[in-house]
Amino acid sequence: MASKALAVIAGVGPGTGASIARRFAQAYSVVLLARNPDNFNPVVQEINSSGGQAIGISTDVANADSVNTAFDEIVKKFPDTPLAATIFNPGGGFVRKPFLELTEDEFSLGFEAQAKGAFHIAKRSLPLFLEGKDKLSYPPTLIFTGATASLKGSANFAAFASGKFALRALAQSLAREFGPQGVHVSHAIIDGVIDIPRTKGWVFEHEDAKLSPDAIADSYWHLHTQPRTTFAFELDLRPYIEKW
Amino acid sequence: MASKALAVIAGVGPGTGASIARRFAQAYSVVLLARNPDNFNPVVQEINSSGGQAIGISTDVANADSVNTAFDEIVKKFPDTPLAATIFNPGGGFVRKPFLELTEDEFSLGFEAQAKGAFHIAKRSLPLFLEGKDKLSYPPTLIFTGATASLKGSANFAAFASGKFALRALAQSLAREFGPQGVHVSHAIIDGVIDIPRTKGWVFEHEDAKLSPDAIADSYWHLHTQPRTTFAFELDLRPYIEKW
Amino acid sequence: MASKALAVIAGVGPGTGASIARRFAQAYSVVLLARNPDNFNPVVQEINSSGGQAIGISTDVANADSVNTAFDEIVKKFPDTPLAATIFNPGGGFVRKPFLELTEDEFSLGFEAQAKGAFHIAKRSLPLFLEGKDKLSYPPTLIFTGATASLKGSANFAAFASGKFALRALAQSLAREFGPQGVHVSHAIIDGVIDIPRTKGWVFEHEDAKLSPDAIADSYWHLHTQPRTTFAFELDLRPYIEKW
Amino acid sequence: MASKALAVIAGVGPGTGASIARRFAQAYSVVLLARNPDNFNPVVQEINSSGGQAIGISTDVANADSVNTAFDEIVKKFPDTPLAATIFNPGGGFVRKPFLELTEDEFSLGFEAQAKGAFHIAKRSLPLFLEGKDKLSYPPTLIFTGATASLKGSANFAAFASGKFALRALAQSLAREFGPQGVHVSHAIIDGVIDIPRTKGWVFEHEDAKLSPDAIADSYWHLHTQPRTTFAFELDLRPYIEKW
Repeated sequence: MASKALAVIAGVGPGTGASIARRFAQAYSVVLLARNPDNFNPVVQEINSSGGQAIGISTDVANADSVNTAFDEIVKKFPDTPLAATIFNPGGGFVRKPFLELTEDEFSLGFEAQAKGAFHIAKRSLPLFLEGKDKLSYPPTLIFTGATASLKGSANFAAFASGKFALRALAQSLAREFGPQGVHVSHAIIDGVIDIPRTKGWVFEHEDAKLSPDAIADSYWHLHTQPRTTFAFELDLRPYIEKW
Repeated sequence: MASKALAVIAGVGPGTGASIARRFAQAYSVVLLARNPDNFNPVVQEINSSGGQAIGISTDVANADSVNTAFDEIVKKFPDTPLAATIFNPGGGFVRKPFLELTEDEFSLGFEAQAKGAFHIAKRSLPLFLEGKDKLSYPPTLIFTGATASLKGSANFAAFASGKFALRALAQSLAREFGPQGVHVSHAIIDGVIDIPRTKGWVFEHEDAKLSPDAIADSYWHLHTQPRTTFAFELDLRPYIEKW
Repeated sequence: MASKALAVIAGVGPGTGASIARRFAQAYSVVLLARNPDNFNPVVQEINSSGGQAIGISTDVANADSVNTAFDEIVKKFPDTPLAATIFNPGGGFVRKPFLELTEDEFSLGFEAQAKGAFHIAKRSLPLFLEGKDKLSYPPTLIFTGATASLKGSANFAAFASGKFALRALAQSLAREFGPQGVHVSHAIIDGVIDIPRTKGWVFEHEDAKLSPDAIADSYWHLHTQPRTTFAFELDLRPYIEKW
Repeated sequence: MASKALAVIAGVGPGTGASIARRFAQAYSVVLLARNPDNFNPVVQEINSSGGQAIGISTDVANADSVNTAFDEIVKKFPDTPLAATIFNPGGGFVRKPFLELTEDEFSLGFEAQAKGAFHIAKRSLPLFLEGKDKLSYPPTLIFTGATASLKGSANFAAFASGKFALRALAQSLAREFGPQGVHVSHAIIDGVIDIPRTKGWVFEHEDAKLSPDAIADSYWHLHTQPRTTFAFELDLRPYIEKW
């Protein structure tokens, strides 16, 4: 395949992941990971038919074997192609329940989907970043998608907040370990409802009350283009009318 | 057994857990949980021989069955005895390693020992708190022991910080859900080296450079005695010469 | 006058300041500072008539000359008496207004009353702490009273939040500079309505919805008694039903 | 004058302010404010001679009259021209001294230069934003430049940290009040040494150890272009090798 650099987007549905894929596909060959191919197939087709290059690989990010198989395939399909960016944008692990009704498995879901998924993806991305960083236009970039629950544990959110806090701890640890090696690690806090198919019916008093997935993607792209002198670690994104 | 209220200390070694047990034993019958009985036996004996009442139960806090067995035994041994306080003071989950050398199991250790242990202990303590709260002198109290890594993910600390962040998320979630029901949930950030047998050999330039386990215990006891009008959620404890 | 150590409480009205004065008067001679003597006279009388020792000095804490005059008087009245604790518990600087209606003077009020007042009080207290610290039972202690607005700037709170943020910056700076010299500097975040005469009429759905000034005073006393191995810098106090 | 929208940069020297001015001059007429005209004259000339439009106005941002005079002149020179962005990038208020050597005036410097300067600039910018916002391509934007000292008070930094904390409180208050009115208020934390003429001689072990003013300007421009559905309030910028 071609010699453009690569971007991997882990966690792609019809919302933010798709927007990020489209944005990064303007510069890179993009690899879309999601458990269900229905989630990435339309975006893959769209990108390929509009002059970009995209493939999708069915992957369970919380599972090491599945992630390893996916990255082995990526390396095989794109030999000698540096990895420019990996975006970890997981969908899973959301549970909202009174604490006393929460099972151990439900409580662990947040950690499994968010932190452990990020662990697997980071384990495979970081060596590729270090290996290929001198062939890239921008510092290799690893972005994690956070949420309100990354900063605040709330009633009925013990499982999800635990996972999102753990993901942020991982992001900070990686930023401090791999930043000095020239890898840009970032954590974006998405504080509000995103305007995706699943939330179409959610009506708010004000217009523009939902985050734009394309605007999120633009901010991720901006993070990616920062030089190593000037890395942002964290930024918070929210609609103008959001209470915070 | 007698009718004093109970305190459960989960995670007892010869350091902080022992000091907390001694402090709470001045007012309550205390139950000490640790995997290895060698860790609680000396304290149990000491408390019992000096007029207090203590038992130890060998427990793996990260294991639901083990925690359930322990609490079943507690309820059986102390029928009609309200639970006044549970202190979660876990020892495990500490891993310090470059990220790329960290295995999936090692990465999970922090979450398992810290967050999941806290989950199991909280699941059994909270119903007992709600049931017995009107028979107590002070609001029932659940205190979690945090660390520097609860607030900051550092290079080589991805596993431990993930676990400690997750534990703090759990603590916040429980404080916001059970505070309004009259349960006092707190999180203490221990920022520094504690003066325990294991750290005896660590010598610092200044004297008094290590946290006193007895002083930590005094602060936990102070948290416990706060009325419900005036709950502290979080406090940070560190030696006077600590850089922070 | 007698040889007990001293505590200075700056900012005394019929609420928290009075409770703190009563609490510290159990161990120390207390000096109460407030602009209006009506604010400290009843407490001074109460303490003196119940076996304690108290004096009040009319002082404008935001004014350097006034603070200097007060401390000169203190040193003269209590020669050779070490200063054990100073509590900065200011009442002023609260303004709640849409930003575009805020005058420059109103905006500065928060800084003047909170941060500059704390500056003056700290300037005079710290040398006394360093001078007398070896004669004290506990490390000399400087406690600043913060608020919700110490952590969060909100609509219409630009003036007050600026003052409270600045006060917290000062507290952190002093803790990091004077902690290693054995002075305990703390910052308490009072997050909620305090149960004082002025708020008597504020009725909430739940009982016990207001912070107890006596319980705040107990926590301040607890901070004061911590050994230098185990200093708390910050704790947050709120009623059990408070949303946060 | 022409009908391009306007950007005001308050606090321009040969470093970050100049880069921000150049960046915003690609789209807007820019107005540069600094006390000393020597600080903005070279940039004004450079922008005008390369096809942009720039003016400089000698202004003391900490002084209300001076700021009012400057904005009156701006409105007169650019009638019917909407204000698209104001960047508050103040240079003053830096004092580094042991606390006991700090005078009252020195302590106030941080607040005066940072918070009060921002107050004056915001007072004049916000009405212009609200008035002209429907004529703009992007939501009107008010960006404040913060520093490490915005988040942490350190020994010898009481004055500067108080000013920077207060500035952040103001930024948060304005974001929460004017965000829902469609104004984008942001706060950027510059955590490290910026590569400007004044720091040319500061040599670090690693190359690229200083923040790039041009990259900071790019991030500010990115913030400005975010749609109101997706506002970032805060981002932190630091060199890849910075310890944090």
